Amino acid sequence: MPGNGFGERFRVSSFGESHGPALGCIVEGCPPGLAVDEALIQADVERRRTGRSRHTSQRREPDQVRILSGVFEGKTTGTPIGLLVENQDQKPKDYRNIADRFRPGHADYSYMHKYGRRDYRGGGRSSARETVMRVAAGAIARQYLRQHLGVEVRGYLAQLGEIPLGFADWSAVDDNPFFCADPERVEELEAYMHRLRKSGDSVGARINLVATGMPVGLGEPVFDRLDADVAKAMMGINAVKGVEVGDGFACVHQKGTEHRDEMTPEGFLSNHAGGVLGGISTGQDLRVSIALKPTSSLRLPGRSVDVAGQAVEVVTTGRHDPCVGLRAVPIAEAMLLLVIMDHWLRHRAQNADVDAPGPRIPARPGE
Amino acid sequence: MPGNGFGERFRVSSFGESHGPALGCIVEGCPPGLAVDEALIQADVERRRTGRSRHTSQRREPDQVRILSGVFEGKTTGTPIGLLVENQDQKPKDYRNIADRFRPGHADYSYMHKYGRRDYRGGGRSSARETVMRVAAGAIARQYLRQHLGVEVRGYLAQLGEIPLGFADWSAVDDNPFFCADPERVEELEAYMHRLRKSGDSVGARINLVATGMPVGLGEPVFDRLDADVAKAMMGINAVKGVEVGDGFACVHQKGTEHRDEMTPEGFLSNHAGGVLGGISTGQDLRVSIALKPTSSLRLPGRSVDVAGQAVEVVTTGRHDPCVGLRAVPIAEAMLLLVIMDHWLRHRAQNADVDAPGPRIPARPGE
Amino acid sequence: MPGNGFGERFRVSSFGESHGPALGCIVEGCPPGLAVDEALIQADVERRRTGRSRHTSQRREPDQVRILSGVFEGKTTGTPIGLLVENQDQKPKDYRNIADRFRPGHADYSYMHKYGRRDYRGGGRSSARETVMRVAAGAIARQYLRQHLGVEVRGYLAQLGEIPLGFADWSAVDDNPFFCADPERVEELEAYMHRLRKSGDSVGARINLVATGMPVGLGEPVFDRLDADVAKAMMGINAVKGVEVGDGFACVHQKGTEHRDEMTPEGFLSNHAGGVLGGISTGQDLRVSIALKPTSSLRLPGRSVDVAGQAVEVVTTGRHDPCVGLRAVPIAEAMLLLVIMDHWLRHRAQNADVDAPGPRIPARPGE
Amino acid sequence: MPGNGFGERFRVSSFGESHGPALGCIVEGCPPGLAVDEALIQADVERRRTGRSRHTSQRREPDQVRILSGVFEGKTTGTPIGLLVENQDQKPKDYRNIADRFRPGHADYSYMHKYGRRDYRGGGRSSARETVMRVAAGAIARQYLRQHLGVEVRGYLAQLGEIPLGFADWSAVDDNPFFCADPERVEELEAYMHRLRKSGDSVGARINLVATGMPVGLGEPVFDRLDADVAKAMMGINAVKGVEVGDGFACVHQKGTEHRDEMTPEGFLSNHAGGVLGGISTGQDLRVSIALKPTSSLRLPGRSVDVAGQAVEVVTTGRHDPCVGLRAVPIAEAMLLLVIMDHWLRHRAQNADVDAPGPRIPARPGE
Repeated sequence: MPGNGFGERFRVSSFGESHGPALGCIVEGCPPGLAVDEALIQADVERRRTGRSRHTSQRREPDQVRILSGVFEGKTTGTPIGLLVENQDQKPKDYRNIADRFRPGHADYSYMHKYGRRDYRGGGRSSARETVMRVAAGAIARQYLRQHLGVEVRGYLAQLGEIPLGFADWSAVDDNPFFCADPERVEELEAYMHRLRKSGDSVGARINLVATGMPVGLGEPVFDRLDADVAKAMMGINAVKGVEVGDGFACVHQKGTEHRDEMTPEGFLSNHAGGVLGGISTGQDLRVSIALKPTSSLRLPGRSVDVAGQAVEVVTTGRHDPCVGLRAVPIAEAMLLLVIMDHWLRHRAQNADVDAPGPRIPARPGE
Repeated sequence: MPGNGFGERFRVSSFGESHGPALGCIVEGCPPGLAVDEALIQADVERRRTGRSRHTSQRREPDQVRILSGVFEGKTTGTPIGLLVENQDQKPKDYRNIADRFRPGHADYSYMHKYGRRDYRGGGRSSARETVMRVAAGAIARQYLRQHLGVEVRGYLAQLGEIPLGFADWSAVDDNPFFCADPERVEELEAYMHRLRKSGDSVGARINLVATGMPVGLGEPVFDRLDADVAKAMMGINAVKGVEVGDGFACVHQKGTEHRDEMTPEGFLSNHAGGVLGGISTGQDLRVSIALKPTSSLRLPGRSVDVAGQAVEVVTTGRHDPCVGLRAVPIAEAMLLLVIMDHWLRHRAQNADVDAPGPRIPARPGE
Repeated sequence: MPGNGFGERFRVSSFGESHGPALGCIVEGCPPGLAVDEALIQADVERRRTGRSRHTSQRREPDQVRILSGVFEGKTTGTPIGLLVENQDQKPKDYRNIADRFRPGHADYSYMHKYGRRDYRGGGRSSARETVMRVAAGAIARQYLRQHLGVEVRGYLAQLGEIPLGFADWSAVDDNPFFCADPERVEELEAYMHRLRKSGDSVGARINLVATGMPVGLGEPVFDRLDADVAKAMMGINAVKGVEVGDGFACVHQKGTEHRDEMTPEGFLSNHAGGVLGGISTGQDLRVSIALKPTSSLRLPGRSVDVAGQAVEVVTTGRHDPCVGLRAVPIAEAMLLLVIMDHWLRHRAQNADVDAPGPRIPARPGE
Repeated sequence: MPGNGFGERFRVSSFGESHGPALGCIVEGCPPGLAVDEALIQADVERRRTGRSRHTSQRREPDQVRILSGVFEGKTTGTPIGLLVENQDQKPKDYRNIADRFRPGHADYSYMHKYGRRDYRGGGRSSARETVMRVAAGAIARQYLRQHLGVEVRGYLAQLGEIPLGFADWSAVDDNPFFCADPERVEELEAYMHRLRKSGDSVGARINLVATGMPVGLGEPVFDRLDADVAKAMMGINAVKGVEVGDGFACVHQKGTEHRDEMTPEGFLSNHAGGVLGGISTGQDLRVSIALKPTSSLRLPGRSVDVAGQAVEVVTTGRHDPCVGLRAVPIAEAMLLLVIMDHWLRHRAQNADVDAPGPRIPARPGE
């Protein structure tokens, strides 16, 4: 496949450019009979929308999601769900000046050499604008997983630049424009972002994700392990440069006696593995962490070349996020939802009639 | 697909268990006319073989690779290449005692709940023994990429437990049993591993990989980005818990002015991105780093449960690596080779007749 | 994948129901730089449109195709092409009376048992209305294949009910509402269809297709043979019940000396194989023939059951084609174009650097 | 994928050439816990074996199938099943004389132009020898479908050359070397084949297949319809040139009132559709018919060209079947089994929790 779809049994294929007429996607494989709440789709899309605070791009898009097929009398029919979002606030003229030059740190150069041409308006297909469709599709997976399996996927900002952020409370996450789970730190973040925006520079971020209520058995060894597909889903988000499952890079200096999660009939005693062993979910919480690079769209000039190979100085105008990590939580949640949903359907294709012996070990209390 | 294959146009599908009669794989899509040097396949397989030093499992497998199809008169025909390795040194009896109990930190529990049964002999399919076939398949990709594109993929041990290791020289890597690129540190590693083995514990590791001579344009946005498939390939290796591309998690605290790789007609000025922008290769070196957890097969007892749900103590006998990271370099190289090979073929499917404007910017000198 | 897409490297995924708000598709993998003539897309869509003659359904749909992405400044960019057609002339009320009963010969019963529910409005997803998107997508493939390879795909009505129809002239095909290639027979067909429509019954048809200018080498043995994918594409068209390649069922009573197409340096001496040997194109014309069943939407009552399992009599109102074969030529052409296009891209993924020995044998003169 | 695999959730990938050291396949996705009877696999393979009568090729291959993985203690584990058949009776020298010339009606020419080279020994990969692995894999599907769903797939010779053959009795099929279901005709067939073999010529055949006990709901609209995948599976068998489902080409002259299968609470009243409506199984018998061309391997000389483009006369020596249709029944059964098995798993991925309203209508009595 040419790379615009994700998933095998719950498959999302998207189209659309940043400043084209519309973006859309097809969601295939959704089990029939799911009561789809359009307001919940719209709510998830709202969470990633630009222009909600002064810390994100000031592009104003209503991001109204239309359902064009696959839902009849409020429920899914099992046929493909077509979703469409029309672009409203395009300003292609903002990008005229970069039509023939490559912004450093952007996909301009790689797209041009891959395809021999590129839609330079706002990055075209390489823009994170495309992720609006992932979030809409993920919101359908969220409703299925919640209703049928009790799975919940949530994320929060774990680090902003040099500022590490703890976890206090899920309920705080949606009360601030940073997806910060510690309400006491919000003021500090406001001040940090204010200084950053004035400087003209940008900064990276780290996001943590947790899926609770996980079934045991998701993941297809040996290549399509659950964690392998999580890694692909996460690294496939714009600006992501690192992915960890469970303890991640901290494993490098751990001992085996420290890392292995011991089990008792009352439950797992720890969750260093992050809910995956041998590529298959254990029923413990799925723990994922990702690193996002600072956006390269800066008004501070950078050295580059143009299509003729001449040295040029590039200044990016247009409307951009000084920290793309700030809007990445709903996108990363959506991708994690898609992975879990897809593997749930794949799992039951092969194993619907499995009757596993022995009791299920509870997830570690307190996770 | 049920998860045992990797790649779309250069596809490797594997079968086989740790203590079954044989392992094998099919390599599909290899361009015809490639002169296949069997000795080079065998040499790569040798690099990951157990029993070469006292620091790895003492299982003695000749790992002799037979080519069963797809090569005629020394060259590939374009039809699928069947590869087979017969197991010689199985000791299934070593595993009788874990037949009805779940080793903590292993796939025993997750396999049992997924499939309702499991081949407990040496971990069955979940064993890293399966990776011998990946290395054999990767060795074919290596020969194509070297002969046709000048791409080389190499890796080295970047950290062993708490010991970070620098890079001195590629030629040192294969001269020691640690894939250490700094010959002066080998003695220290020997002592460390000696102590570790005596303690009965295990430890994690970090591996760095570099692909040089990369073409521009590999990767299929938006989901099958080159880095996304790299992440999947790496996280799909046994024991891997973290993946970074380019600066990885260091991006979190970087500023945009620091991270973006500026370009001049003479070349890129840095390579923080690790050779990928917008999911497409830039022609710079592809830089990847992975974290491997400590193996959970320990002779130090751990708490667990049995299939009846009763608390038990588990001691793992059998032959195991105290640091799986020590043999992971050839495996990780193989997976990276498979990703690059697959994306090369995918790229030219769509873009074989593209005539990109402007000169190619050289990779950063010194990389 | 859940069945709504076709092709691997040139992939078309569609969504939409007969009486939903819109139908759409995503065309992935199109080589960049293709000059897309929107009028040619619209022209192909016009050819399958209802309401053009009194012999087809009287539903009036403008079938205006909007390109939402993937084309920039008149040329493809290599990113997915989103196509949309809004439904205008829905009459869902026409179908209220079949909401709880299964029309004999329709997908009503099978959809209900597969999904547990169905969109009964005009057949929902099972309606041939969906094929409008296939035709639009096929029109893009047609432009590429014509411009880059000189391939042309054409079809004509070869039999209507008991009336076999010869081939006189391609130029006649689009001059009558039957896609008949023999202008002298058109009057007879008019009279036949007039009688049929008055009777309330429907009838089957046969369509012949020919692709000229074929490259040698398309098709991927052993399962994804060119003819195997042609068979799938054709049998995947609504109402198709039979597919032949080359001499098809006539091969049953042929002798080997009669069937094998001998070759001379001046050309093949016959084309019984229909342009495919061993699943790979020979460069001869690709010859395909398909059988379409009579539509089951009749105003003549039929026995059936309702969702409660009670016996009922079903009369289909709504607007229907008395011979679906009459509009199937553009659909079948589109599917054949998609198969050829996909296999062209797949072929060059593996074989772009093949330098085949020996001259190409010309296709049989006169074909 | 490069064409050597079939199925998505029950996937068979094969390798091997006619005169290479071995053939093999991987069967992925088989539900765990299936009791695999190796003797039944071997029995199916026996049915397609050469050399069982004087009417087939005299190549003597034991075709002993080894299970290399995926079965443990007599049951499937859910991991991939590796199957291997070593070639024993290769005679590559028989084919030296065709190394540089193209046999008319064979894949020699198309392979050479696709790949730039070919393994000429017995047709290499294009040989029907490869189908031994399909039969072995199909035998595993057969066991699952029989044990879990009560599905049976059977075929018989319906026409040999100009001799149409009726259906009398399934039990007769395996009692003669023709897979003829009418024991009274066997003598006639013996005489026909005797004359044919003496003449040096070959002939075509037609085979009918029936799957009984079909579940309702298999097939994935709109492209991966059950009948579409049946068509692909059948046309993907060597020498097949035509495929029909249900009434097939007879539909062309049928009226809608004649074709539509009416339903009553007691059962369907006919089965013209052949068990598929809208691409989804109805629970009626799945009826399929295929046409096989006469083999082109003849000792009667034919005109052709060599790799230098010079006119040559070709006589095929080696060992060949004068009617490939005679051994095609087990192969076609295997492919049909694979399609049904795959769609069963795909179906339950999406619809495992569907509770369809209303009773299931019985298949037509007497079918």
